[in-house]
Amino acid sequence: MPSPLKLALAELSEAKIAWRSDDADRVAYARDLFPRHHMAVRAGNVAAHPPSAVAWPTSTEQVATLVRWAIQHGVTLVPFGAGSGVCGGVLPTASSVVVDLKRMAAVRSLDVDRPTVTVEAGHMGLPFEEWLNHRGLSLGHFPSSILCSTVGGWVAARSAGQASGLYGKIEDMVVALECVTGRGDVARLVHRPNGPSLVPAFIGSEGTLAIVTAAKLRLHRAPTVRGFASWSFPSVRAGWEAMREMFQRGLRPAVLRLYDPFDAMLARSGRVRRRRRRDGGGSPTPGRGPAALRALLKRPKLLGELLESQAASAAFGGSLLVCIFDGHDERVFHDVARATAIATSGRGKPEGEAPARKWLLHRYSVSYRQAPLLAQGLFVDTMEVAATWSKLGALYEGVRRAIGSRAFVMAHLSHAYPDGCCIYFSFAGVAKPGAGAWDEACEARYDEIWRDALGAALAAGGTLAHHHGIGRSKAPRLGDEIGEGMKLQRALKRAFDPHGVLNPGALLPPIAPDPFTPDAFPSPFAGSVSP
Amino acid sequence: MPSPLKLALAELSEAKIAWRSDDADRVAYARDLFPRHHMAVRAGNVAAHPPSAVAWPTSTEQVATLVRWAIQHGVTLVPFGAGSGVCGGVLPTASSVVVDLKRMAAVRSLDVDRPTVTVEAGHMGLPFEEWLNHRGLSLGHFPSSILCSTVGGWVAARSAGQASGLYGKIEDMVVALECVTGRGDVARLVHRPNGPSLVPAFIGSEGTLAIVTAAKLRLHRAPTVRGFASWSFPSVRAGWEAMREMFQRGLRPAVLRLYDPFDAMLARSGRVRRRRRRDGGGSPTPGRGPAALRALLKRPKLLGELLESQAASAAFGGSLLVCIFDGHDERVFHDVARATAIATSGRGKPEGEAPARKWLLHRYSVSYRQAPLLAQGLFVDTMEVAATWSKLGALYEGVRRAIGSRAFVMAHLSHAYPDGCCIYFSFAGVAKPGAGAWDEACEARYDEIWRDALGAALAAGGTLAHHHGIGRSKAPRLGDEIGEGMKLQRALKRAFDPHGVLNPGALLPPIAPDPFTPDAFPSPFAGSVSP
Repeated sequence: MPSPLKLALAELSEAKIAWRSDDADRVAYARDLFPRHHMAVRAGNVAAHPPSAVAWPTSTEQVATLVRWAIQHGVTLVPFGAGSGVCGGVLPTASSVVVDLKRMAAVRSLDVDRPTVTVEAGHMGLPFEEWLNHRGLSLGHFPSSILCSTVGGWVAARSAGQASGLYGKIEDMVVALECVTGRGDVARLVHRPNGPSLVPAFIGSEGTLAIVTAAKLRLHRAPTVRGFASWSFPSVRAGWEAMREMFQRGLRPAVLRLYDPFDAMLARSGRVRRRRRRDGGGSPTPGRGPAALRALLKRPKLLGELLESQAASAAFGGSLLVCIFDGHDERVFHDVARATAIATSGRGKPEGEAPARKWLLHRYSVSYRQAPLLAQGLFVDTMEVAATWSKLGALYEGVRRAIGSRAFVMAHLSHAYPDGCCIYFSFAGVAKPGAGAWDEACEARYDEIWRDALGAALAAGGTLAHHHGIGRSKAPRLGDEIGEGMKLQRALKRAFDPHGVLNPGALLPPIAPDPFTPDAFPSPFAGSVSP
Repeated sequence: MPSPLKLALAELSEAKIAWRSDDADRVAYARDLFPRHHMAVRAGNVAAHPPSAVAWPTSTEQVATLVRWAIQHGVTLVPFGAGSGVCGGVLPTASSVVVDLKRMAAVRSLDVDRPTVTVEAGHMGLPFEEWLNHRGLSLGHFPSSILCSTVGGWVAARSAGQASGLYGKIEDMVVALECVTGRGDVARLVHRPNGPSLVPAFIGSEGTLAIVTAAKLRLHRAPTVRGFASWSFPSVRAGWEAMREMFQRGLRPAVLRLYDPFDAMLARSGRVRRRRRRDGGGSPTPGRGPAALRALLKRPKLLGELLESQAASAAFGGSLLVCIFDGHDERVFHDVARATAIATSGRGKPEGEAPARKWLLHRYSVSYRQAPLLAQGLFVDTMEVAATWSKLGALYEGVRRAIGSRAFVMAHLSHAYPDGCCIYFSFAGVAKPGAGAWDEACEARYDEIWRDALGAALAAGGTLAHHHGIGRSKAPRLGDEIGEGMKLQRALKRAFDPHGVLNPGALLPPIAPDPFTPDAFPSPFAGSVSP
C-alpha cells in the first residue's frame, strides 16, 4: 500500500510539477557546502539529512501550488538554488521536500533606459552576468561563488560580490521581488520611494518567509575604463586606516582588498595553491598544497606569534592593499591618483598595478578540493564578520586571540564602507594529532573553534556574518547579536509563514513551543543557544 | 463627576508624563500643514479634528507607558514632530491623544570614527545640522522644511533633502532605530549586514507601526570644496536626458535641479516672491505676489498652451538645470567638467555658476504665507511624484494634461537617481471664480484636482509620492499603487500594532471590518477608495 507521502507526492504529478524521490537525488540535495556537513559525508554519514523528495517547479504558480500542498500535508519545503551556501542554509529532514528553482531561469524583461532586468530565481550567476555583458550592461555582482550560485540564492542569503565597494551588496541591486510566501500567496514587492519598504525584510530571509521566484535588478553600464593600484603597509591597521580614509572621503573603488602579512606573503610568494574556498577571490597566485600546510599548522600558536612580530611582518613585505576603480572615463585615473595620495600619506608604499591585475585574473580561482586536506586530518574554514571602524581592531585581535592556539588564522579585509568593514578570516588547523579520518572528536574540536570565534566576534561588537548568511550554523547566536530584534523577526515569521512550512531552523533558531519549527533538528552549536 | 477620559489622563500625571487638554493646545495640535486642512481652518472650521489631549513624553520609557496606557483605555495616539507634513499624516480625532516628541531632543552619542550620531526623535532639523557642522560633520539632509521639522518626522515620513543626489534620502542615513511598537515594546532595530533588515519597514511607516524615539544616523565629513554649474536646455526633456546621463555614468552631484520653462523664467526674472511652500528650495529669486498670480491664473489652460509653445520656451530661455557638487578636493572640479561635457553634448548651453550659487543662497526661502493667496480665492499646492526614466515623459505630460484646464501647472525635477527621477509639480488655480472665501465648493474643486492629478500619475506608471509621505490624503490610493502589497502592509500592521492604537487612518486606508482603525474618519478622497 502506498504511504501517505507517496499519495501526497502523486498530487504533485497531477499538478504537472516534476519531482523525484530516488536515493541518488535525495542524497545529492541533502546539504549545501557547509564544511561541517561536508566533513560528515567524508566520515561516511552520507545521508544524515536527506529530503523525502526533490521538486523542480517551472513557474511561480507551481511554486505557489507546492507551498499550498506543503501546508495541506504538513510537509516542510527547503528552497534550493545551486547549493553553494556555507552555513547550512540548506539542510532538509525526512519530512522536507527540496524545491530546486533552477528550472525557473528565464530573463523576463530588460529595460535598457533605466536600466533594470527582471530575471527568475534559478538563473545561474556567471551566464547571467555574461548575458548582460553582451548587451553592454553589468549587474556589478561578483561573488566568488558566481560559477555555482543563482540569482535567487544571492537574494535569499544577502550576498556580496567582490566589487561591492562601487556596486554595493545584492540588496542595493534589488528593486522588486516576486516571491511566494509561506501562506501560498504570490507577493510582488517593489522598492518604492514612498511608504515603508518591505523588500529588505525579504532579502536575506533565507527562504524562511517566502520562496523568491524572480527579482528585478538594477543594472549598470559595463565599465569601459579600469584603473589599478596596489600599496604595501607596515601593519594591517595602517592599511585599513587608508581604506577608511578613501571611503570617508567619497572614493568608491570597486575592489579594495587588504591582506594581512601572512596572507599577503602567500599572495606574493605563491606558496599555497588555491588555498581558499568561497573566498571573495582566491590568492593572487597559485602554490604547493596541503602537506606544507599540515607541517606549518602543527604549532599554530607559535606560528601565529612569529608572524605577528614586526620583524616577520617586515620580512614578508607587510600588508598588501589591492585596488581597482571601474568607470567610463578619465575620472577613474583621477580617483586612482586620489587613492594613491591617501595611501602614501598613510605610510603605504606603492607596489604598482601588477598585484591588482593579478588578483583580477585569478578572481574566481577558488578550490573546491578540500578532500586532500581533510584526508590529512586538517580542516579549513572561513568566517566573514564585520564591524564599524572603531571596533575593527578589537574584532581583528579578539578572533585571533580566541582561536589562535588551536588554528592558524589569516585574514583579509574586503567590502569596505564609510562606516566599517568586513574581516574575512581563514582558519586552518590540525583536527586530529595524527593524520587520519574525520571523526566525532574532530567534529567537536571544529564546533568548539567556531563557537569561540563567533563568541569573540560578538564580544568585540562585530556581527555574526557579512555575506555568507546565518543559515543553521549561526542561527543559535542570532539572539546574541540582535537581542530584542528576535521578537520582531519572529513576528515577521508568524505573519508570512504561519504554518512554518518554509526552511524551518534556518535563520531563526528553533524555540521550544514554537509552531514554526515542527521538525527542528539539533543545531551544531546546540550548547550555545541564547536563552 | 470626572469623565472616564479625565480619569485615564490622571494616570498619566501619576506616571509623571506631561499632558494638557485645554482648547488652545488641542486646536494647535489638530493638524499638520496639509493645505486642505489649512483651508478648512480659514473657512472657520478651526476645530474639525482636535485631539482630546496633548502629551509631552521626555523618555522612551514614557512613550512606552503612553502606548500601554492607550491600549488599556482604547485611546489612539498620533505621534507629532513639528507638524510640517503636507499630506494629513497628523489628524487626530476626539479619541486621540497627540504625542509631541519635541521634549526628547538629546544627542545621545557621537562616533567620529564611523561617523554616526544617535539623536532623539524630537530634535529640530536645522539646529541639529548646525550642531554637526560645528564638529566638521554633516548629515547631508536638507529638506526645505529643515526649519520646522524633526529627525523623527524625517524618519516617519521618509523625507528627502535637497542634496539627495550625493547623500541619499533619510533611509540611506538611518543605521539604527529605537522605537516603541503598538504593542508597547521598545524595539531597537539595527541595519546589519546579515539577515533580513527590518529598519526599512519602519522608515516611512508614518507612526502606524511604532513611534520613533531615537535614530542612529550615518554622517559625512562636512564638504570643504564645492563646485557650481548651470545650463539651459531647449526642452525639459533634453534637460532630464542630461540628468539621466550624469547619474548613469556614475556622477553624484549633491544638487541637480531642472526647472521647466515657466518655472525657470520665474527663477530668472524674479516675478513671484517665495512662491512655493515645502518645496525642495524656493525659486532662485524673489518677486511680486498673489495679485499678479491671480491675473495669470484666470485662464490656466490658455496660459499653459502658450507656455508650451517652442517660441515661448525659447523666449523664456528654455529649461534651467542647476548643479552643485560637494567634496573635499579637486575631484569636485573634475566632476563639474564631466557634467558640463555631458550637458553640452546634450544641447545644454552653459549659464555659468551664478544660477546655482543663487539657488543655494535662497535654498530655504520658502513661504508659509498662503493666507493672502487664499483670501484671493486662489489655491496653491505641490505634488511630488516619481517614475523611472522611461516613464518620466508620460508622467510629466499626463499630470499636466489631467489638470491643466483647471490649474496652472509648473514643474521642476529634483532628486535624480540612476533609475529615475522625482517630478515636483506646483499647481495654482482660482478656486472661486470671483475673489472670496474658501468654501465647500472650493474644497470640492481642490479634491477633484488632486484626485485627477494622482490618477494621472498612477496611470503613467508613477508613484503616489516621493518624499512628502502618504498620510491620509494619498492613503485611499495606496492600493492602486502597490496592489497585493497591501496584504503585506496590513500583515505588518497586525504584527506590530494589533490593537490599532497608532495613528489610525494614516498610510493605510481604513477598511470596513478592520480592527486597526477604530476611529476611522472620512477621507478627503473618500470617493476614490480602491476596492
